[in-house]
Amino acid sequence: MKLYGFWRSGATYRVRIALALKGLAYDYAPINLLKGEQGSPDYLKASPQGLVPALITDEGPVLTQSLAIIAYLEEKAPMPSLLPGDPISRAKARAIAFAIACEAQPFQNSRTQKYLREDAHFDDAAMKRWLDFTVGRALRAVEIMVADAGGKFCVGDAPTIADICLVPQVYAALRFGVDLSALPRVNEIHERCNALDAFKKAHPDNQPDAPKG
Amino acid sequence: MKLYGFWRSGATYRVRIALALKGLAYDYAPINLLKGEQGSPDYLKASPQGLVPALITDEGPVLTQSLAIIAYLEEKAPMPSLLPGDPISRAKARAIAFAIACEAQPFQNSRTQKYLREDAHFDDAAMKRWLDFTVGRALRAVEIMVADAGGKFCVGDAPTIADICLVPQVYAALRFGVDLSALPRVNEIHERCNALDAFKKAHPDNQPDAPKG
Repeated sequence: MKLYGFWRSGATYRVRIALALKGLAYDYAPINLLKGEQGSPDYLKASPQGLVPALITDEGPVLTQSLAIIAYLEEKAPMPSLLPGDPISRAKARAIAFAIACEAQPFQNSRTQKYLREDAHFDDAAMKRWLDFTVGRALRAVEIMVADAGGKFCVGDAPTIADICLVPQVYAALRFGVDLSALPRVNEIHERCNALDAFKKAHPDNQPDAPKG
Repeated sequence: MKLYGFWRSGATYRVRIALALKGLAYDYAPINLLKGEQGSPDYLKASPQGLVPALITDEGPVLTQSLAIIAYLEEKAPMPSLLPGDPISRAKARAIAFAIACEAQPFQNSRTQKYLREDAHFDDAAMKRWLDFTVGRALRAVEIMVADAGGKFCVGDAPTIADICLVPQVYAALRFGVDLSALPRVNEIHERCNALDAFKKAHPDNQPDAPKG
């Protein structure tokens, strides 16, 4: 398998965590988002949305969308599972993952921020309000959802798809100065995940395309 | 089961299509988004994000996030399946669903549009550019993805999770004046879906809380 991605892309980070938790080996092909490599004709053939990540499977086809890639990995290499063992807990884990993937990440990714700054002339204060209205609000909801689900991780006592989405989202939120100080469960789970080898291995700073030093 | 929703909500519409395709009966509890009922303390207990839909399961717990609800329904009532039969096609169907759910719908939903108009002072022209940059671009990518996947529907010859996301997205895009005229496959699939009884039954106009006439 070959993963196209970018060290700091949150969606790529999710797939790296999933691959690491499952212990799957892969080649890594960096796509430099800052240089616009995601818009090259060659890359658009692999990923029509011009987004990272994309995964070239051993079967040949290229898959896009991080959560679709992770569902594929779950089917191909079921153990360890990235989903809880019962249907209601699985639904809760997926709901947290989607709350992040649909209600937080899209509003804060580099393409959206670039548009809002350049086309809509958001200044720093406007961006801060926007990020709190979107990312902050989504993570405040996630705080309630993880408290309801209980356990050491988002849902239960092992990392699931919910944690795979949470950790890159917290990384981005901190990077962009979103205030998470009132979210004790989110912070605690973030820290517990980051103590695990798989999450360390997947961290942006530990990727070959990350800036040195 | 009891579904909390709103006739015109795209995410509720997805769940209604899934329930109808599977022939599952449910009670319907309208939450009037225009009156702010999604922000009431009682509803926030069910849905901490203050979003519709939410599903009260027969097992008791309340589930949120349309795609998590649909995955739960798929597990509880596997036939007819809302996913293609092989892993690569399943990944393609999910990628289309997520391309819509993560890259189109959030940018166009009523909460986001309200914020951009009221806080960021978007006028009609700015909103039109924003919707084309987000919804338009996502659907242009979906046009390529469905052409690649082939078949009568988004992926293959039966409706899947991809079509369940596509139809409400096209409904919203047309409502907000996003130009889809250059997307023949998207339009053809949209029309083919809407000819099916399950999609008709789930259509916003056919809900008890839709305005009369």
